[in-house]
Amino acid sequence: MSVHTIAAVLGGKTPLGQEITVQGWVRTRRDSKAGLSFVTLHDGSSFEPLQIIAPAELPNYQGEVLHLTAGCALRVTGELIASSGKGQTVELRAARIEVVGWVEDPETYPIAPKAHSFEYLRSVAHLRPRTNSIGAVARVRHCLAQAIHRFLHENGYFWVHTPIITASDCEGAGALFRVSTLDLVNPPRTPEGGIDFSQDFFGRETFLTVSGQLNVEAYCLALSKVYTFGPTFRAENSNTSRHLAEFWMIEPETAFADLYANADLAEALLKEIFRVVLSERADDMAFFAQRIDKTCIQRLEQVVNSPFERLDYSEAIGILERSVQSFAFPVRWGMDLQSEHERYLAEDYVKGPLVLINYPKEIKSFYMRLNDDGRTVAAMDVLVPGIGEIIGGSQREERLDLLDARLDESGMDKMAYNWYRDLRRYGSVPHAGFGLGFERTISYVTGMSNVRDVIPFPRTPRGADY
Amino acid sequence: MSVHTIAAVLGGKTPLGQEITVQGWVRTRRDSKAGLSFVTLHDGSSFEPLQIIAPAELPNYQGEVLHLTAGCALRVTGELIASSGKGQTVELRAARIEVVGWVEDPETYPIAPKAHSFEYLRSVAHLRPRTNSIGAVARVRHCLAQAIHRFLHENGYFWVHTPIITASDCEGAGALFRVSTLDLVNPPRTPEGGIDFSQDFFGRETFLTVSGQLNVEAYCLALSKVYTFGPTFRAENSNTSRHLAEFWMIEPETAFADLYANADLAEALLKEIFRVVLSERADDMAFFAQRIDKTCIQRLEQVVNSPFERLDYSEAIGILERSVQSFAFPVRWGMDLQSEHERYLAEDYVKGPLVLINYPKEIKSFYMRLNDDGRTVAAMDVLVPGIGEIIGGSQREERLDLLDARLDESGMDKMAYNWYRDLRRYGSVPHAGFGLGFERTISYVTGMSNVRDVIPFPRTPRGADY
Repeated sequence: MSVHTIAAVLGGKTPLGQEITVQGWVRTRRDSKAGLSFVTLHDGSSFEPLQIIAPAELPNYQGEVLHLTAGCALRVTGELIASSGKGQTVELRAARIEVVGWVEDPETYPIAPKAHSFEYLRSVAHLRPRTNSIGAVARVRHCLAQAIHRFLHENGYFWVHTPIITASDCEGAGALFRVSTLDLVNPPRTPEGGIDFSQDFFGRETFLTVSGQLNVEAYCLALSKVYTFGPTFRAENSNTSRHLAEFWMIEPETAFADLYANADLAEALLKEIFRVVLSERADDMAFFAQRIDKTCIQRLEQVVNSPFERLDYSEAIGILERSVQSFAFPVRWGMDLQSEHERYLAEDYVKGPLVLINYPKEIKSFYMRLNDDGRTVAAMDVLVPGIGEIIGGSQREERLDLLDARLDESGMDKMAYNWYRDLRRYGSVPHAGFGLGFERTISYVTGMSNVRDVIPFPRTPRGADY
Repeated sequence: MSVHTIAAVLGGKTPLGQEITVQGWVRTRRDSKAGLSFVTLHDGSSFEPLQIIAPAELPNYQGEVLHLTAGCALRVTGELIASSGKGQTVELRAARIEVVGWVEDPETYPIAPKAHSFEYLRSVAHLRPRTNSIGAVARVRHCLAQAIHRFLHENGYFWVHTPIITASDCEGAGALFRVSTLDLVNPPRTPEGGIDFSQDFFGRETFLTVSGQLNVEAYCLALSKVYTFGPTFRAENSNTSRHLAEFWMIEPETAFADLYANADLAEALLKEIFRVVLSERADDMAFFAQRIDKTCIQRLEQVVNSPFERLDYSEAIGILERSVQSFAFPVRWGMDLQSEHERYLAEDYVKGPLVLINYPKEIKSFYMRLNDDGRTVAAMDVLVPGIGEIIGGSQREERLDLLDARLDESGMDKMAYNWYRDLRRYGSVPHAGFGLGFERTISYVTGMSNVRDVIPFPRTPRGADY
């Protein structure tokens, strides 16, 4: 029994006339008046299913084949033949169809073949990868993840697994999830009535990480080129289509690099992974372009083919001030740009991707490098038409005295960052990095507008099912 | 300025006679009576540093070069020449040495060049990747991770990001970390005095995952071949060299696969990643063989070159009973094998890797498939000489009635597993998977005997620094 994936069969890797076996789940069944049935079989390996021709001569044709419904699991052996039907080049003429698993009650099968809203599909997250859209998302997600690993590996970057549980909160910002084994009903108390975290599992209060950046910097100053690819967490009560409590992030960090090298890396990374997904998942991308977002392929091609413009924040403020566009948030130097501003710059002004650099220090984190003007820091955001910011990063402050001044200004406890300050005491070098939110990237690539639909089991306020 | 990595230079990718720039950190400096200095420079890209020849004619020779110590960051430009010294084929004759970052006080530099115990290095985890051993671990870790992704991708597996925060506890076993945003000092209470988790972030009690298996099974029954690669957690108070509270696990899951196909995949995966690490990280592996564990290369070669024997648990019990070896734990059918038994089987009996299959159902999890004998399940452990178990897995119970019986026997709440049971209601198929503990694998590959030294920032009881 020579078992083939449907991707291999449809990809022309299986010669015609050969007897093969395929395994998967029924998508549709259509009975012809000619006394045979057409069954489309899907195994997840590609977007398209394989058409099976089930002749009435099959011993279980009446007893089983005519009762097949969407979701039934089959093992089919037969001869691969050229197809005369439209929409496919090959089909399988079944010599044997084995029903491996039935659908208990087709009438109540939660994802019976009809249109389901994405909202409904979230309520059956364990079954939704069987649908066209969520299955395609899963393959695109995988393809992008592999492309990221491959690109960074080939460019000399090492994947570093920074900790998930942490006693520090990276950016001094963002709501945190506490991690604890203390008995909540009756927690140990300090004499003052507080919680005695010295009795907790780690002997101190701990949280889920919001970023691996500070930790990965330690490895950057030893291995030169490193990155994280892992889950990060925000306990913000944001019930929007753009926020998840648990999401994945990629954070490359490069030693001996300034902001411009950092922007070059971000541009090269995005171009490469978009190029790869257009090439390796053309089947799924065609589906997204047809059914979800007509512009998604063209949008990616534009990013792949455009040089990313560099634009100074101060310059951008001038452009926004001079524009005839009216904004809900008034424009002034020192403000944090809103989505409307970012999208104007990318969509109307540059008409393509751009890297915005050198932001006012007041609106950026303590670890970003102070520019010589004393009022901006070497921060960058990569903005793309369609959604605005897709990457945020910076050159890091490598000078201990300036880092300390920024920690003081921000009212942060220097002692808590002593190990991070050590990196500036011993062989400090200019270094820079950025964060790419993985779900927002997938959302951008596929046009799936809610990030809850691009992660297998989304975690959101009041949502931790499965 | 043409910047090269030291890996590229030592790898012969840079022609002799060319002017190049390298960047990195000083490992050693030796001043010659001939009036020049030898500086070894390391940038993390390879195990070996590059030797720099610093002639006295450099303008900053007296003022700076003669004060260089381990850890100082340099940018060096010069001509690449053939080396007459032993231990290297090329060296860089410096025309310019720029000190990018000094070491604040070389006397107190925590990892000054001398022998440090691994225990001490754990107390400076932010600096230890600058040492030979921990740097080599980081590169080997990266290499293995890439090899795993590549192997699974090339074999048609999709990486699925299963949730980290979960409301269910996968195996009904293992101590859990609670994830919460409730105010610990004054948590909301139920009328009965318990904690009112309905007011917690997720509206229910949630934990850190101990395994992505159950979730990834849902994707397996849609995409056929899937895997997880992510962090998992155990809140066990185990202060041993083999336990971490936070560790990474790889869990492939295959549809239409039985236990034998599962064992074949495990064998192929281990062989491939060991083959890759021997080839791609020969430099680091030579170091481990020389300084950490003389047998580590030979051990991997043995695994790569041996067919893994398959052995039935019941047969293994007979072998152990008949052996002349005396065991601390007496051998009887139905027992869980101890490390001493596993190692006897791998090291003395088979003298190579083996897959032990078909364990008594009483000592295995509810989701493992019941064999026809009614008393064993289709579980497997892969045992290797040196450490014993490196992989654990099973064929899953795909028959709803038998799964339900096992849930009942185990005293588990069927309703909590309703979504998991759905996978057996709708197109259920035989499927199987396993878990590979990433840190134990790295420990096995490198001979580093404490798993705390093979993960960047270990999380252990009372240990969550950095």
